[in-house]
Amino acid sequence: MELWYSEKHTEDVKFSIKVNNHLFTGQSDFQRVDVFESDEFGKFLTLDGLMMVTEKDEFIYHDMICHVPMATNPNIKNVLVIGGGDGGTVRELTRYPSIEKIHMVEIDKMVVDVSREFLPITSSKLDDTRVTLFYEDGIEFVKNKPNTYDLILVDSTDPIGPGEGLFTREFYRNCFEALTEEGILVNQNESPYYEGDAREMIRASQKVKEIFPIAKVYQFHMPTYPSGHWLFGFASKKYDPIKDFNPSKWEEFGLKTKYYNTDIHVGSFMLPTYVKEMIESGTC
Amino acid sequence: MELWYSEKHTEDVKFSIKVNNHLFTGQSDFQRVDVFESDEFGKFLTLDGLMMVTEKDEFIYHDMICHVPMATNPNIKNVLVIGGGDGGTVRELTRYPSIEKIHMVEIDKMVVDVSREFLPITSSKLDDTRVTLFYEDGIEFVKNKPNTYDLILVDSTDPIGPGEGLFTREFYRNCFEALTEEGILVNQNESPYYEGDAREMIRASQKVKEIFPIAKVYQFHMPTYPSGHWLFGFASKKYDPIKDFNPSKWEEFGLKTKYYNTDIHVGSFMLPTYVKEMIESGTC
Repeated sequence: MELWYSEKHTEDVKFSIKVNNHLFTGQSDFQRVDVFESDEFGKFLTLDGLMMVTEKDEFIYHDMICHVPMATNPNIKNVLVIGGGDGGTVRELTRYPSIEKIHMVEIDKMVVDVSREFLPITSSKLDDTRVTLFYEDGIEFVKNKPNTYDLILVDSTDPIGPGEGLFTREFYRNCFEALTEEGILVNQNESPYYEGDAREMIRASQKVKEIFPIAKVYQFHMPTYPSGHWLFGFASKKYDPIKDFNPSKWEEFGLKTKYYNTDIHVGSFMLPTYVKEMIESGTC
Repeated sequence: MELWYSEKHTEDVKFSIKVNNHLFTGQSDFQRVDVFESDEFGKFLTLDGLMMVTEKDEFIYHDMICHVPMATNPNIKNVLVIGGGDGGTVRELTRYPSIEKIHMVEIDKMVVDVSREFLPITSSKLDDTRVTLFYEDGIEFVKNKPNTYDLILVDSTDPIGPGEGLFTREFYRNCFEALTEEGILVNQNESPYYEGDAREMIRASQKVKEIFPIAKVYQFHMPTYPSGHWLFGFASKKYDPIKDFNPSKWEEFGLKTKYYNTDIHVGSFMLPTYVKEMIESGTC
């Protein structure tokens, strides 16, 4: 017998993985949560059937969401993570001794519980003493927290289901208010390749750009996400991720990373022409 | 009824595309040749069942194989393309009025004939007066052509079947001899992500590095290839693709490109740490 997990990247494109075990399935108040085990990717977590994290390539996503802003402003002390229930984003943050406080707001406790049980690779640092977990709606959480965080990382699902509100103008506006004057926002910014993803990519970029004086996107190779071409948004009140980037200051942290380095920090902001044009024109 | 084309990216990973029509199937002396038509990717060509080119994203591969070396040395006059039967690489080359002569050596005439019939998007410039087609084995063709070409582009399949000999030390050595003192070699260099591809990627990089004084790899996002993370090798007797790169000289050509630009030229050489380490250590 063969057991295959499939995700439809579009109506006409399917990505399938041969699995050895279906380790967990559950329906939370928000979504369906599954964990599988495979030879190629190790264990992997899906939400409503969509790939979130695999043991093989989670390092790429978590390196790029965390180290790009940290290397832009190495003085970040207080961080808010919205979503990110698998814990990988928090794990990377805890590697900086200079970070004093990490708030993680995950709406779905089941994602955290399941990650603690099956994905120690990502969840291992959720009990770091600097981390506080809130099982709340991130949209509500960021309201009325003026001038509180140096960095907000939006580690969200796609803009359907529980993640939808994390792609609204109002939410980005509240993030702006919740950030200090030195604040940086990094948000999951979808993909430029398939039309449905590209439309959300453009909308998210435009909304962020309306609110923040500095707003860019950067790209990375994420093989288990649709097309493998994924983006984060980088927005800030003060810091430009290239002009204000000081590679040697980040090197002083002495962190060993598997994807991120101070070259790719710069290279990831150098986008293909079609991606730049989509963002500028607002159409795909 | 639904008709799905599937390619196994590894034994445990499958990429599938819903197709409307199976436009062509044929067995040449070298391989099985198929053309399909789909909503998502338009028409696409496969060789021995492996994806070669789709109407949707061929521009990415052809931009990156051609414009990176041309922008490094804008004085290139004589070019040899090995493989590339769909014609997309030649199409991009013909956009440079400064190029005087393009030799294309494709072992399999069926690939060219089928591309002329079904893929005018890539094959449209094969009749440019500067182009000469040779239906020959590229491995033999480069022997005894000393000091002949300013640029050799190896637009090959994977190192199995007819493409295998295009990944050997002897072949790269013959390319070195066939290049002028200013010569540049760009070769299809596989992918760092799945283990089988990564092994070939490392081997090709190492062989080229033994022969050429300047040898690097650069990356691009190619969604229809396994993992979407693909590499070309850049090797030269004289030119470094970054140090000798003069963006404004390339801008003078006035070419409109959809993926390539003078930023991504630089960014594409900035590699993830794990890719750099694979190439340096020789293991994956």
